[in-house]
Amino acid sequence: MAQNSEPQKTAGTEHSTKGAYVTGGEFTRDTNYIEDRVVADPQAAQSAPQEESSSIGDPRMAGLTEGGQAWPVEPGRYRLVAARACPWAHRSIIIRRLLGLEDAISLGTPGPTHDARSWTFDLDEGGVDPVLGTERLQQNYFARFPDYPRGITVPALVDVPSGGVVTNNYPQLTLDLSTQWREHHREGAPDLLPEDKLDEMLPVIKRIFTEVNNGVYRAGFAGSQGAYQDAYDRLFTAMDWLEDRLAGSRYLMGEHITEADVRLFTTLVRFDPVYHGHFKCNRNKLTEMPNLWAYARDLFQTPGFGDTVDFDQIKRHYYEVHEDINPTQIVPAGPDLANWLSEHGREALGGSPFGAGTAPAPVAASEQPGGANPLYR
Amino acid sequence: MAQNSEPQKTAGTEHSTKGAYVTGGEFTRDTNYIEDRVVADPQAAQSAPQEESSSIGDPRMAGLTEGGQAWPVEPGRYRLVAARACPWAHRSIIIRRLLGLEDAISLGTPGPTHDARSWTFDLDEGGVDPVLGTERLQQNYFARFPDYPRGITVPALVDVPSGGVVTNNYPQLTLDLSTQWREHHREGAPDLLPEDKLDEMLPVIKRIFTEVNNGVYRAGFAGSQGAYQDAYDRLFTAMDWLEDRLAGSRYLMGEHITEADVRLFTTLVRFDPVYHGHFKCNRNKLTEMPNLWAYARDLFQTPGFGDTVDFDQIKRHYYEVHEDINPTQIVPAGPDLANWLSEHGREALGGSPFGAGTAPAPVAASEQPGGANPLYR
Repeated sequence: MAQNSEPQKTAGTEHSTKGAYVTGGEFTRDTNYIEDRVVADPQAAQSAPQEESSSIGDPRMAGLTEGGQAWPVEPGRYRLVAARACPWAHRSIIIRRLLGLEDAISLGTPGPTHDARSWTFDLDEGGVDPVLGTERLQQNYFARFPDYPRGITVPALVDVPSGGVVTNNYPQLTLDLSTQWREHHREGAPDLLPEDKLDEMLPVIKRIFTEVNNGVYRAGFAGSQGAYQDAYDRLFTAMDWLEDRLAGSRYLMGEHITEADVRLFTTLVRFDPVYHGHFKCNRNKLTEMPNLWAYARDLFQTPGFGDTVDFDQIKRHYYEVHEDINPTQIVPAGPDLANWLSEHGREALGGSPFGAGTAPAPVAASEQPGGANPLYR
Repeated sequence: MAQNSEPQKTAGTEHSTKGAYVTGGEFTRDTNYIEDRVVADPQAAQSAPQEESSSIGDPRMAGLTEGGQAWPVEPGRYRLVAARACPWAHRSIIIRRLLGLEDAISLGTPGPTHDARSWTFDLDEGGVDPVLGTERLQQNYFARFPDYPRGITVPALVDVPSGGVVTNNYPQLTLDLSTQWREHHREGAPDLLPEDKLDEMLPVIKRIFTEVNNGVYRAGFAGSQGAYQDAYDRLFTAMDWLEDRLAGSRYLMGEHITEADVRLFTTLVRFDPVYHGHFKCNRNKLTEMPNLWAYARDLFQTPGFGDTVDFDQIKRHYYEVHEDINPTQIVPAGPDLANWLSEHGREALGGSPFGAGTAPAPVAASEQPGGANPLYR
């Protein structure tokens, strides 16, 4: 996520990932987003009681949060703008693929680095997104709100006809892809939000968000040694909890992949290449936690996960954008990534990744990530 | 090593470890030192033919290099000033201890951080070295050469009566402790420079110096992505060579510890706590190279090695001093260090650490390192 927010730094460390700020040495994420939703039945959503905003989203939410508007599900109308580098955007790329929404929602991919103002379409021919015709995602935010004051973040779902951003509320976005776009899922799409698991899953998702997904940022952007130490302790307490939880269970919620696994995966795949060194999350590498490492490889080797990963973009993003913690902007050459394809042995725990569903087809050639992904060597 | 050198940065990255500079993006170490020697027979040294200076020192050197002077071996006369943080100084702390020279040569230990001018005695009571009476090592350099123009580096051997630095030529210093101070070695001191191994050992020591000891700095202080990549490739080529070499041989030169092992150990013990993250030497951790990691633990658990290590000082030195690559100066909490005491299994390769000699006695209470050393928990 990033860019062009209000001046939000109040103390300590500077950092370029706006949409976040540092108070009293502790990193805090700005969780104010454009909370519009694309829903199957806009009228029903509009007339439902107003809901509370949630940092992890709400799969059962019928209505809208304050100020939110409802947009209709409509294949071909929206473009998902999601930088491969960004973990919050990466979620939506995986979910779209698992559910087979590629034909219903197109994908725009800004490059890994961005300037102080915006993610840019610098990887596209002529530096312009081929569908939206914009050079900078900021233009799409401004097409919606000319004075948009907060961070220009990804993922952003853009209304192609108007060029305006509909929502950048990433926690709700992926849930809505499951619940609102059901009619357009591929045949065999998995149920990533099984109704009978939700009550158990939401607290797991919440803890993963606060302690792990965001926990690594809290460590990396800490403005003081004390804030860093607290963040480090919280992160590894949660990592130990996950290591335990995955000892006897193939996936976080048991036998099949759910939304919770997607949300954990995007942090795990960045752990050794970025967070371990750049964010000083270095009690140990992911590879030193046997269950988590086997679990991460199991997912990586499952269609829909590893085949969306661009390690080069991931590394370049963090190491080049965060000049305040890596002023040389030199990108580490390591770690060696071939081991992501090594045997993980998790089949022995039983389960099946897609439950009653099936694996997605291979990634279309036009959407294959580049970079140092051992799956594409 | 560090401090107070001429302006030597000509391009690229700034860094605070003077006594080094960056040219065309590549880090280069300043290898001009005060090349005086303390020798058993000063007159013989003075009258011997002039010798060439060497980046690794010369255990067979009879005479002096250009401008060098000979000082007499004399127990109680000299003080070894060696910061525990610094790998070049750490060598001399280990060798002094292995040879049992503690009573002959006292030890002064500057703290892990230093300012732009000098290492300082900030850990000592009142911030003053109890023997030299100085606050800054720079004062001892100036006592010898009032206009001393180069880096104020450790280790420095100081003549206590005059307070002046005799030599900071670390590669020769440890060799001379073996060859010139023999009369004052403890009973059972090992032969770290076995005559019949020297021809094989010196090229090994040279390669370890250029590719590993200095190789990690070349990676960490690279001024461009290209210079970094070259440094990374050179370093790990040498690490792979060492991994192979140590597969069937307990120590670098076979069955017993030599000077070569000491010179490799000081880099290995810093590898995961500092070089892996801070210097981006991250193809893998030391713990991921089975032979090197077992070898490093074998040495760590041998009296004279691990018992001299202060991990806290090591981490604070690099992460706090190099503001140009770690501007937040936050020191990582990891890695977990308990595994340095785990079983290494290297006894199966045979050999005996001290050959015909014996292990040194435990470290005197007054010289025990603090910090997160699992040996002292």
